[in-house]
Amino acid sequence: MRRIAILAEGSFDWQNAKTAVGVLRYSQDTVVAIIDSTRAGQDAAAALGDPNGPGRGVPIVAEFAATLPYQPDTLLIGIAPIGGRLPDAWRREVLAALQAGMEVVSGLHEFLADDQKLAAAAHEHHGRIWDVRRPPEALAMRIREGTPHRPGSHVVSFCGSDCNVGKMTACVELDRAAQRRDISSVFAATGQTGIMVSGSGIPVDRFISDFISGGVEAMVLDFAKRYDWVFVEGQGSLGHPAYSAVTLGLLHGAAPDYLILCHEAGRTHIHGYDIAIPPLSVVREINETAVAWLKPAPVVAVALNTARLDVDAAQAAIEAAAQETGLPVTDPVRFGADMLLDALLARA
Amino acid sequence: MRRIAILAEGSFDWQNAKTAVGVLRYSQDTVVAIIDSTRAGQDAAAALGDPNGPGRGVPIVAEFAATLPYQPDTLLIGIAPIGGRLPDAWRREVLAALQAGMEVVSGLHEFLADDQKLAAAAHEHHGRIWDVRRPPEALAMRIREGTPHRPGSHVVSFCGSDCNVGKMTACVELDRAAQRRDISSVFAATGQTGIMVSGSGIPVDRFISDFISGGVEAMVLDFAKRYDWVFVEGQGSLGHPAYSAVTLGLLHGAAPDYLILCHEAGRTHIHGYDIAIPPLSVVREINETAVAWLKPAPVVAVALNTARLDVDAAQAAIEAAAQETGLPVTDPVRFGADMLLDALLARA
Repeated sequence: MRRIAILAEGSFDWQNAKTAVGVLRYSQDTVVAIIDSTRAGQDAAAALGDPNGPGRGVPIVAEFAATLPYQPDTLLIGIAPIGGRLPDAWRREVLAALQAGMEVVSGLHEFLADDQKLAAAAHEHHGRIWDVRRPPEALAMRIREGTPHRPGSHVVSFCGSDCNVGKMTACVELDRAAQRRDISSVFAATGQTGIMVSGSGIPVDRFISDFISGGVEAMVLDFAKRYDWVFVEGQGSLGHPAYSAVTLGLLHGAAPDYLILCHEAGRTHIHGYDIAIPPLSVVREINETAVAWLKPAPVVAVALNTARLDVDAAQAAIEAAAQETGLPVTDPVRFGADMLLDALLARA
Repeated sequence: MRRIAILAEGSFDWQNAKTAVGVLRYSQDTVVAIIDSTRAGQDAAAALGDPNGPGRGVPIVAEFAATLPYQPDTLLIGIAPIGGRLPDAWRREVLAALQAGMEVVSGLHEFLADDQKLAAAAHEHHGRIWDVRRPPEALAMRIREGTPHRPGSHVVSFCGSDCNVGKMTACVELDRAAQRRDISSVFAATGQTGIMVSGSGIPVDRFISDFISGGVEAMVLDFAKRYDWVFVEGQGSLGHPAYSAVTLGLLHGAAPDYLILCHEAGRTHIHGYDIAIPPLSVVREINETAVAWLKPAPVVAVALNTARLDVDAAQAAIEAAAQETGLPVTDPVRFGADMLLDALLARA
């Protein structure tokens, strides 16, 4: 069990601290403190807007040195900035953690271990660096073969309307709901936060384009040998102006039997772009169309993220989505993932 | 002007020596010899099945040493093996060329310059290594922005039914046809052969998945500033079991105004896989659908590769494709690319 300090300088809010929130909510490890000088002194849960939510009792401090009384053994970089590079201001905090002999966990595209100064500091002070986004060598240049999954296994892919709408969250919640019913299942992480939370998976968006589907196939084949239900975290969206290649490579690599469609209620545009998100029924059709180019798979349910709504508005949004799609719809965080699980079991 | 010896050991045929054939056909440089011990003594054109075709008068020799009387200054690796790795047997030929002070040009995924022994040999003997597939540093981690192209420019993407059906060939032929009419145009290479032939472009399948669309966007924006017509080489196909991510990332990154659909007459299955290619009208629909997730673009003509057919069968295949699609269809190698160009100019 780790004792984690999360670096989220200037960014510890819902919109920007996606990795921090994911780790607070789902990691088996203990988060002992958050570093964000702009929110120092607050409780982490309160800073995220829900005093009883994830991060309750976790202090926010101004700098790495202030985490030491809480005895962390790990510094985790808790944001996923567009572009994936380490902000200059954060380097000295990382350096301080390595000099204190800690492990630094990073999901950035720019690998910390490739930075000579950081690598030297780690070596000298017996610190360690885990670059979560580095593809495992055995899978980094694997061409997809099209090998069928073990008969009797079921592979479920999570697709969505945009980045950061709750695909990982829905996937983890569904896996936990299945395990509570003693169903053999696994969460197959495909992004940095999911990998940090689960300790396994592959960082698909960092794979070389030629090999993304091959890497995903290898992971899914392996999980499908060992588990009856494989819940594959999704990434981006097929209509995303920057990341659609990742989305399609992941979808075709997983070759799912079923899809769960994820959306955030009220999200109208692709985050960061002046591009409207199509109606949910169209997003569903786009995903079913693209997956069928290789192997058909239906959307069987919708996971609707209603975190920004009050409970009445949430229920109204769920009802509207159910009307539009004719599918079971729920918010798996707010109301549990059992409805999603039942929809899958009814098809299997 | 280079004097090129092409290494194609055991593989100098139409199916396997795609890069060699592309360079023989389109490079401005002089190919002085082919290395393939299994075909030594033959004329290159004859070995490819058309004594008057590309490679006429170019000798095939058994090993690198036998190319020296023809005074090459460049050794070019002329195959694109699945997986992209350098076969062990070829390493000593590469080493010999570097020790002779030549430049070695490679499109393999495994970079020669990262091989310590090869890099040391190059350094010691003033040889050079050009790893064509290494993404240029300035574009390697660029996120796509969605910036519109220069008004008045026209971007044309080449899409297809499979790998190696003639997308690059159609693209180069169209560019040449346009230049013969004094139209401002450019061939935007996206694969190793195209980059070797044109001396510019980017190796999209080697880009990190997150950045493929951003890299393509930067290249196309730059070309669209300087040329009225930008012909963007395509890669793979949207239904390809291994490479669909590359295809979609390239298509969305280019954000074309028009599409040219490429197919090889008689190709029924994805090469190397037990997967049927859909009818041409369906391939067209798939590409128009996927590109429209970001910005609509119509297929305006079909480039049909009839290299394996006699002229009567070729004309029948072209007629059948025109009937099926209702579009202008031609084989741009056999009959010229003017019909494709006219179809584009009529829309612009």
